[in-house]
Amino acid sequence: MSKQNKSSVKVFSPATVANVACGFDVVGLALDGPGDEMELQISDAPGVRIIRVEGATLPLEAAQNVAGVALQAMLQEYAQPDLGVEVTIHKHIQPGSGIGSSAASAAGAVVGLNKLLGDHFPAESLVRFAMEGERLACGTPHADNVAPAIMGGFTLVRSYQPLDVIRLHTPEDLWVTVIHPQIEVKTSDARGILKQQVLLRDAIRQWGNVGALVAGLYQENYPLISRALEDVIVEPIRSILIPAFHELKLKCREAGALGGGISGSGPSVFMLSKGETNARAVADTMQQIYAPLGVDYKIYVSRISTSGVHEIQD
Amino acid sequence: MSKQNKSSVKVFSPATVANVACGFDVVGLALDGPGDEMELQISDAPGVRIIRVEGATLPLEAAQNVAGVALQAMLQEYAQPDLGVEVTIHKHIQPGSGIGSSAASAAGAVVGLNKLLGDHFPAESLVRFAMEGERLACGTPHADNVAPAIMGGFTLVRSYQPLDVIRLHTPEDLWVTVIHPQIEVKTSDARGILKQQVLLRDAIRQWGNVGALVAGLYQENYPLISRALEDVIVEPIRSILIPAFHELKLKCREAGALGGGISGSGPSVFMLSKGETNARAVADTMQQIYAPLGVDYKIYVSRISTSGVHEIQD
Repeated sequence: MSKQNKSSVKVFSPATVANVACGFDVVGLALDGPGDEMELQISDAPGVRIIRVEGATLPLEAAQNVAGVALQAMLQEYAQPDLGVEVTIHKHIQPGSGIGSSAASAAGAVVGLNKLLGDHFPAESLVRFAMEGERLACGTPHADNVAPAIMGGFTLVRSYQPLDVIRLHTPEDLWVTVIHPQIEVKTSDARGILKQQVLLRDAIRQWGNVGALVAGLYQENYPLISRALEDVIVEPIRSILIPAFHELKLKCREAGALGGGISGSGPSVFMLSKGETNARAVADTMQQIYAPLGVDYKIYVSRISTSGVHEIQD
Repeated sequence: MSKQNKSSVKVFSPATVANVACGFDVVGLALDGPGDEMELQISDAPGVRIIRVEGATLPLEAAQNVAGVALQAMLQEYAQPDLGVEVTIHKHIQPGSGIGSSAASAAGAVVGLNKLLGDHFPAESLVRFAMEGERLACGTPHADNVAPAIMGGFTLVRSYQPLDVIRLHTPEDLWVTVIHPQIEVKTSDARGILKQQVLLRDAIRQWGNVGALVAGLYQENYPLISRALEDVIVEPIRSILIPAFHELKLKCREAGALGGGISGSGPSVFMLSKGETNARAVADTMQQIYAPLGVDYKIYVSRISTSGVHEIQD
């Protein structure tokens, strides 16, 4: 523990949007908020203890908690058997919302502990540890939420074997509006309805859009980003699970959104906009569409976070 | 013809690599050479006349010549029925080589005439006209060779309906080595062996690589470009048409290439390298592999052209 700086830390861990339109399974982004708050403290008793979870009903047993297993993977690689850590979690991201609730817990935990270890591990290792939380949460150790939560901005998961995560350029004036309809869509169900085979023609269109989206981000070319925000593979199938999806998409574009799609595996829907004014107009439009539906919902308006998980003061 | 600057022009039109690895059907790039030379001259007799073709046996009848049909499409939109143009073509790119021979003729023709029309048309219109040449040459009006030939550098064809072509950033020190085995691979055959359906899993890997390739170009991150130069969809099928393809790829990487793949629909194979020294070492490796095979071949080493078709002096 020679690099250890201090014995406790408090972090903010943001919500994230995975499956950014054409970038299914590869492109994600981090919000400024909402996000979870977590406190981590080095302790004398070896291993990971989840002391308290507020804001959601989640297991306290470390091996059953996404933050717990992520920290266990990290401690195992740190290889100091005496080291212990205690964690308190304040959930503000509702589990099952499609904006990376489990990823926020796992990402916040590993970034927090890394700060207590004097930034011992590089970001890519942290992603790898946090993926163990995702493995527990949904059966697959996917990285497209934990990567933006840890690195901030837009990220691209190029490969899992070996893990290759790229932080993309993020235009400063890009905002996100998210609506979370309070209905349940299980990740496993959302994955189950996908076809294992797709038309080559559609796949080509999709990778043309992914290339264009990345170019649009680097060029800070908002019209190009807008044109590239198209998903011809997954959205046509999954959107049936989300009330009023097509009206939402159409009206949000009319209200000034660049485009958007399903956040993660839903039920949240995200829209990107240039500037806060547009993002708020999009929020109003979402509200007008959802208010009469009789479905409860929450709406978030946020800049894209360029920092990801970060330390906060008490 | 108010914007007409002069009555004749000579242009150089470069070879191009389409289907750049993961970017099948969407990513292309332009070479500094080899390339065709073309002379265009305004004439009193309306319409397009191909005066002479040197270096290859190609039809002189405009409607049967790729440069001819591209120019006809352009004249039709220019809508000055009296206007005529005469064209002389010096082919240095062998038809059927897989490095954009037909694209060079079509691209050179439309850029040349556009210079005589005072740069009347924007690049995207020129791509559209030149695509008519590709329609004649191979039945499909594809843009992934004519776009880099006209715009230079790396280009990405995001969409055809509507046409949306993006010029990508091109790192200055990126070089291309191309080997053209003198065997015949017909585009129609190369397309015929592709499957119409692909695994979603493979498609996701491919679009992760496309996104990473574009990010690598903008970041000028050569290791990232190298990792992204992977094609899990088309290369495994088409590479059987090319002698010693896998040995070529493996040994070229060992010799310092970042990676590469089949150029267009083959038979040419391209490799990208950082810097001329590596690109020339890759050329030596290609020669060592092909010399014993008893297949004739040509090898080209070139910087990536950032200008595309350009005017030259007599």
